[in-house]
Amino acid sequence: MTKNLFSVIGLVARHSKPHIIESLLTLAAHLTQRGVRVLIDAESMPPADDNTPAYPAVERDDLGKLADLVIVLGGDGTMLSIARVLAAYRVPLVGINQGRLGFMTDIPLHEMLGAIDQILEGQFVPEERILLQASVIREEAEITSALALNDVVISRGALGSMIEFEVFVDNQFVYSQRSDGLIISTPTGSTAYSLASGGPILHPTLRAMALVPICPQSLSNRPIAVSDNCEVAFMLTRGLDTHVHFDGQSHCDLMEMDRVIVRSYRNTLKILHPIGYNYYDMLRHKLHWGERLL
Amino acid sequence: MTKNLFSVIGLVARHSKPHIIESLLTLAAHLTQRGVRVLIDAESMPPADDNTPAYPAVERDDLGKLADLVIVLGGDGTMLSIARVLAAYRVPLVGINQGRLGFMTDIPLHEMLGAIDQILEGQFVPEERILLQASVIREEAEITSALALNDVVISRGALGSMIEFEVFVDNQFVYSQRSDGLIISTPTGSTAYSLASGGPILHPTLRAMALVPICPQSLSNRPIAVSDNCEVAFMLTRGLDTHVHFDGQSHCDLMEMDRVIVRSYRNTLKILHPIGYNYYDMLRHKLHWGERLL
Amino acid sequence: MTKNLFSVIGLVARHSKPHIIESLLTLAAHLTQRGVRVLIDAESMPPADDNTPAYPAVERDDLGKLADLVIVLGGDGTMLSIARVLAAYRVPLVGINQGRLGFMTDIPLHEMLGAIDQILEGQFVPEERILLQASVIREEAEITSALALNDVVISRGALGSMIEFEVFVDNQFVYSQRSDGLIISTPTGSTAYSLASGGPILHPTLRAMALVPICPQSLSNRPIAVSDNCEVAFMLTRGLDTHVHFDGQSHCDLMEMDRVIVRSYRNTLKILHPIGYNYYDMLRHKLHWGERLL
Amino acid sequence: MTKNLFSVIGLVARHSKPHIIESLLTLAAHLTQRGVRVLIDAESMPPADDNTPAYPAVERDDLGKLADLVIVLGGDGTMLSIARVLAAYRVPLVGINQGRLGFMTDIPLHEMLGAIDQILEGQFVPEERILLQASVIREEAEITSALALNDVVISRGALGSMIEFEVFVDNQFVYSQRSDGLIISTPTGSTAYSLASGGPILHPTLRAMALVPICPQSLSNRPIAVSDNCEVAFMLTRGLDTHVHFDGQSHCDLMEMDRVIVRSYRNTLKILHPIGYNYYDMLRHKLHWGERLL
Repeated sequence: MTKNLFSVIGLVARHSKPHIIESLLTLAAHLTQRGVRVLIDAESMPPADDNTPAYPAVERDDLGKLADLVIVLGGDGTMLSIARVLAAYRVPLVGINQGRLGFMTDIPLHEMLGAIDQILEGQFVPEERILLQASVIREEAEITSALALNDVVISRGALGSMIEFEVFVDNQFVYSQRSDGLIISTPTGSTAYSLASGGPILHPTLRAMALVPICPQSLSNRPIAVSDNCEVAFMLTRGLDTHVHFDGQSHCDLMEMDRVIVRSYRNTLKILHPIGYNYYDMLRHKLHWGERLL
Repeated sequence: MTKNLFSVIGLVARHSKPHIIESLLTLAAHLTQRGVRVLIDAESMPPADDNTPAYPAVERDDLGKLADLVIVLGGDGTMLSIARVLAAYRVPLVGINQGRLGFMTDIPLHEMLGAIDQILEGQFVPEERILLQASVIREEAEITSALALNDVVISRGALGSMIEFEVFVDNQFVYSQRSDGLIISTPTGSTAYSLASGGPILHPTLRAMALVPICPQSLSNRPIAVSDNCEVAFMLTRGLDTHVHFDGQSHCDLMEMDRVIVRSYRNTLKILHPIGYNYYDMLRHKLHWGERLL
Repeated sequence: MTKNLFSVIGLVARHSKPHIIESLLTLAAHLTQRGVRVLIDAESMPPADDNTPAYPAVERDDLGKLADLVIVLGGDGTMLSIARVLAAYRVPLVGINQGRLGFMTDIPLHEMLGAIDQILEGQFVPEERILLQASVIREEAEITSALALNDVVISRGALGSMIEFEVFVDNQFVYSQRSDGLIISTPTGSTAYSLASGGPILHPTLRAMALVPICPQSLSNRPIAVSDNCEVAFMLTRGLDTHVHFDGQSHCDLMEMDRVIVRSYRNTLKILHPIGYNYYDMLRHKLHWGERLL
Repeated sequence: MTKNLFSVIGLVARHSKPHIIESLLTLAAHLTQRGVRVLIDAESMPPADDNTPAYPAVERDDLGKLADLVIVLGGDGTMLSIARVLAAYRVPLVGINQGRLGFMTDIPLHEMLGAIDQILEGQFVPEERILLQASVIREEAEITSALALNDVVISRGALGSMIEFEVFVDNQFVYSQRSDGLIISTPTGSTAYSLASGGPILHPTLRAMALVPICPQSLSNRPIAVSDNCEVAFMLTRGLDTHVHFDGQSHCDLMEMDRVIVRSYRNTLKILHPIGYNYYDMLRHKLHWGERLL
């Protein structure tokens, strides 16, 4: 039996669509055959069936405790939601995309088994990604907190008028601003909503956060990148219909004078890429950048 | 008695703040003394007082019918709301700002009487501004319609996910887009929200509309200006929490497959500026552009 | 013999590359067979050969006088250079691209004969494009003048320091600016260099020019579109190594205090497109905009 | 006599304008009185005069060897040129502005003596800034090399056509690009030319470089920030009139196939700011960002 670098592997799938279930079961059988113990995320568990072997169904938090590798079948959105749960447990992730190539789910479905074998044999490119930890403070009490791998976004709602706020970095006043909102982005999130709002691309090895205004009224309010050692504090001074979003997956309503405090999270997320992975190849592919001329 | 170019003048004020009321009454007295008949917008009417002369209080729609000039004391926001009501009546407007200089309210309060005298004597710079007329169509029926002097803005609400839509100009398909929304702006609105979203400044004499994407996911989705003879059709293909705003002053919720049809309105708005008015001076002042070097 | 809408047609090709020469001769033979008199641009004339029939070689200016249609085989660059010469003669142009689809050269080489037949039979979509006429003035004397279909670009050279200048529209001062330069673009040019510098797309039917700063030091110096009735005056106040370019095809060195005066040219350029032509299709294709979703 | 943290101080002034000379001499006298040994940059030395005390005139490179602090009277441009020379010697700099407040020359002339006294007593905010070291390689040989505190800029010259190039980071291919050029900027340079070209602001504590395209033809070519551990390699594939500029103060002509290799320099530049210095205050002041609302 082959020696495996990881002995307990959790599997998570985006949907219980038939072809994903089939891939999930194929992967589970393959791993079992290699002597790996397979756990399946309870939400991703296919319906019981007499013909399919039984794998333990495990809650997501328990996946973090029990598995020493988690493989995600889905898109970057699935990866985001898993990462936010598993970041506390330092378990590395591998992403298999079920359709379009993703920034984090970079193994195509049809290359899945070969790529996983290589990873089990220690052939991979590890990458550390920072996460953000955000707290929402109302009158000195924390009313909610959340992690984000992409971004913490404070934005106006349906009323259609700009919001006003102040921003502090490490307790130093940065600016007051009138705009549609503010994005605090990680390098991972720098190719998502932040990019659409005019933010810079930050290479994942850069330990940085970008503060990116959304449609600021003042034309000189430009994106700024700061070290991930910084604490960013946002205070809403005006805006009756304002919300803070975490990776676009959960959110919290804000009241005037609420503060949102953002720091980098103590753990990073470790993603394992197949050999040959190159961040710039991915970027060039996704953004249709020019290929080599010579 | 001086001969006046306008014989019935309506007065509108933004607030019934004491110093605005005082200015309104000073202006009313001055006009009366010149032999002008003064009507006062019912909403702007100061509370009755034994010491103040009585002026007829008139509903806004009637102002349009009765007055041959309307003077607005307020900011550009007040001007927008008056313009949307009075555009049907072709009555020219004059704007007096009560604080910061506005793009349309360009007579300072302390120069009010002299400037108005000049206008009554025919000394002014007239400017025509186009308005937009928008219809919201749901399953072939118009569910609402509105005028806009600045812009028609379709934007996502509090849910935090981008919306998807298609745009047609004169029944020609332009693009599908995933973004925070779309601004359809007049030249007047081109220095407002559109500018914050990266739209071009359109000189008021340009008979054009700008289609300006708000944070589009595709980086090549850039603003485009089309003739104001065009009909712009927006169709929402995805977005559960989407709204259309008219000048940021009224709005309507949209459902998927709703269409918003935007054309230029049959009437233009005529604004009278004091002698010496220059659009570029205003722009330079508001945007802190460089002054003459030599 | 078929009746033709155009009886004398000039042919221009970009290069004397073998496959272009072959296409040129194929087209010439086809037109001759239809009873059209064919003239060939002297610069585009293939080398004499015993086997090829002789067509009159004509200077470009004479093409404008003699032909009632000119067909261009090449790219948008070739179209630009022909347009600048022929604009004085009001002769319509048809563009056949020899490689990538162009904004103006929109007939693919392999559809050439069918498309030209349709055009000869009056089946086409005509489009009028404005041109710019620029004069360079030094100490009250005009030192050069030129036409431009895309843009008049004033820009710094190799010294690497920004230039300073003042801009006037219809003798009204607009701004002073410190930047890498200024683009004055037609709607045709709005999808060329202007777009790369952050300028808006202007639909060809819009009678407008865009003033687009190149990397302005002041972040509020944004593009502005004005009516093509306007006269734009640029005055260089500082910049030892400054040049004005006309369609990127000819240029003139500027000295401090030189002025560049730009107006729209008296004639428009008429381009004939094949039936089914749609500006937005072209734009969507070239900019990779989203196709219909439904 | 007061105890001084620095015992040999070099003085550099931008110009030998009378009021700067006067300030220089006032400062020199003040320092001498405090028991500091004063050296004066040979280029900045005022003309000899019977009434002025003599200070040793020292070449810039020797200043780096002999002084343990250098005070610059001038603007950010003077600071740049001094920094490029002194970076090799690790001597800290203090900047006194003679006119407008600069990002690095942040002590106003009229507060000079008090601020310098505080610095001599160890009351200051030190700040480390990275520099770039660039080599130009032609056919495997280095033809020039230079340091830059702001930026290394490769840009087209007077010919008016875009250049084409390839970029590599740590030997990984990033993109090919057609544009007016590329800026490789430090955090210090991120508020200079880079900002005008759409680059992000990078906080000085961020150990990063930004790659910022200048007017790229492809609209998805956006700025990217990478770690300052990276090696950036630029290769010119097309462009007959291309130049590389170092801080806009020296430059070198490039030929096709030349490469420019950029790394961070082994030493950082140490700038001493007066107590109370805050980077964001400076930024807000220079960019006219909004002040506190509450």
